[in-house]
Amino acid sequence: MIDYRLLQALSAVVEQGGFEKAGLVLHLTQSAISRRIKQLESVLGQPVLLRSSPPVPTAAGQRLLNHLQQVRQMETALGLTDDPQDLVVRLATNADSLATWLPEALVLPEQQAVRFDLVVEDQSVGLKRMKQGDVMACICASPQPVNGGAVMALGALRYRAVASPAFIQRYQLHQQFEKRISQAPCLVFNQDDQLQHQYLQHVAQAVPQRFHLCPSSEGFLKATLAGLGFGLLPELQMQSQLESGELVDLTPGYSLDTELYWHYWQSESPLMYQLRQNVLQVAGRFLSGSE
Amino acid sequence: MIDYRLLQALSAVVEQGGFEKAGLVLHLTQSAISRRIKQLESVLGQPVLLRSSPPVPTAAGQRLLNHLQQVRQMETALGLTDDPQDLVVRLATNADSLATWLPEALVLPEQQAVRFDLVVEDQSVGLKRMKQGDVMACICASPQPVNGGAVMALGALRYRAVASPAFIQRYQLHQQFEKRISQAPCLVFNQDDQLQHQYLQHVAQAVPQRFHLCPSSEGFLKATLAGLGFGLLPELQMQSQLESGELVDLTPGYSLDTELYWHYWQSESPLMYQLRQNVLQVAGRFLSGSE
Repeated sequence: MIDYRLLQALSAVVEQGGFEKAGLVLHLTQSAISRRIKQLESVLGQPVLLRSSPPVPTAAGQRLLNHLQQVRQMETALGLTDDPQDLVVRLATNADSLATWLPEALVLPEQQAVRFDLVVEDQSVGLKRMKQGDVMACICASPQPVNGGAVMALGALRYRAVASPAFIQRYQLHQQFEKRISQAPCLVFNQDDQLQHQYLQHVAQAVPQRFHLCPSSEGFLKATLAGLGFGLLPELQMQSQLESGELVDLTPGYSLDTELYWHYWQSESPLMYQLRQNVLQVAGRFLSGSE
Repeated sequence: MIDYRLLQALSAVVEQGGFEKAGLVLHLTQSAISRRIKQLESVLGQPVLLRSSPPVPTAAGQRLLNHLQQVRQMETALGLTDDPQDLVVRLATNADSLATWLPEALVLPEQQAVRFDLVVEDQSVGLKRMKQGDVMACICASPQPVNGGAVMALGALRYRAVASPAFIQRYQLHQQFEKRISQAPCLVFNQDDQLQHQYLQHVAQAVPQRFHLCPSSEGFLKATLAGLGFGLLPELQMQSQLESGELVDLTPGYSLDTELYWHYWQSESPLMYQLRQNVLQVAGRFLSGSE
């Protein structure tokens, strides 16, 4: 079994941002910390830490830190520790969930001291981090659980194709819509984002000819409002703009649903169980078609 | 001088997402495209493309693509080309600018066919990409121009420390503020974000003891509204929430200004000049203390 004092040294170096500060926290000298890190690396046969300022864990180091957090959580649940240190929950999420419904689900009762380390990943790729053991839970579009993991359906984020009135005017979308929409610029979140492609395929049997890459949920909304392009946005994110007429639904009745899933480890600590119940409850209020 | 047909092949492969599609666009066979990429790599002595699906440019490949775009812009300006292809402007920006004032500045007159490829980088590190020639312009907090580059002050994003009324209640911040604020959880954008540290140092001579990492501008706002933590947010982003009372200014009169700068290349094409004027004009309306 691995020596957890070595993992604690690694955790302290990353948390505190340096070997010296880690030593202060663990009541060890800087060189004792350094020896523990080296010992850990010799056990693993690979580096766990980039010696930058501040030091950054390697992928292998991050997996160890994640494992350490899970162990700490289970110890807390069993009453084995009264370590007052906050538990760190590393959670991968798609950007649009974080920009809309997710934050409300992260507020837990105060007796649960928890720190969230949120990681934004495209919904189609967030699962990779889960597979690598890099995160403790993941919200993404894949219904397939990873090895040792389980999955729970959350419901769907519903997207609608919208543009600003000025944009509709500029590209004269009131007439010859099919032809003109496929020539008008659209916004695309990143290279993995296919929503605009699906929409144009549906309404005009076309692919986007002109697009801007805008990898920010809020930036995407702001750029649509400014008239930089049209795009598919979550209904949840733009209700007030649709009501006020700042944004116009280009194809009323058309929507694209992205089903979302909560991926978690089967060895679920009580804290992660409670978080999952919270997430399920909030998702039930905001997402479409969840039960 | 480099053979630009090789760069065009690289550009087409990346744009089209594959060798075969690139061949269709350039009226070449797939193997002719492949030969050009290999020739380019033999000239440079390093790979320009990861042969993934879709192919992704290496850092060296991205520098070449950026260079090609600059050359295309200059050719267009000189009337040397009537290539109808959109020019791609790769622009690094801090997340909060993209979430607030920047999108409006990106709307150019329609005769300028341009595609933005926005890259979100922390304000302290975005400049690195500029130095690497990876982007054509950069909005960040550094006033120091890079080699061959110039810089223009845009004004400051003004941050205020805010929390939700429920959060203030939960952590009883109405009394013993200095002691309790330093024990209450705060939100931190990422490891580079020092705004909360500066604030706590100012009001309580303390460092954050509990924090959540939330690398999304909109998520940061939503998490503050949900009561997950307090945090420093751009005034621009939360005016309506401050007015409605959904968020409360924790320390009225206290603000933190982040000065922002537009970095550009001295060999500036007319398009980039026009974009810079747009940015300057919009920044003048939204940012603090710009001239």
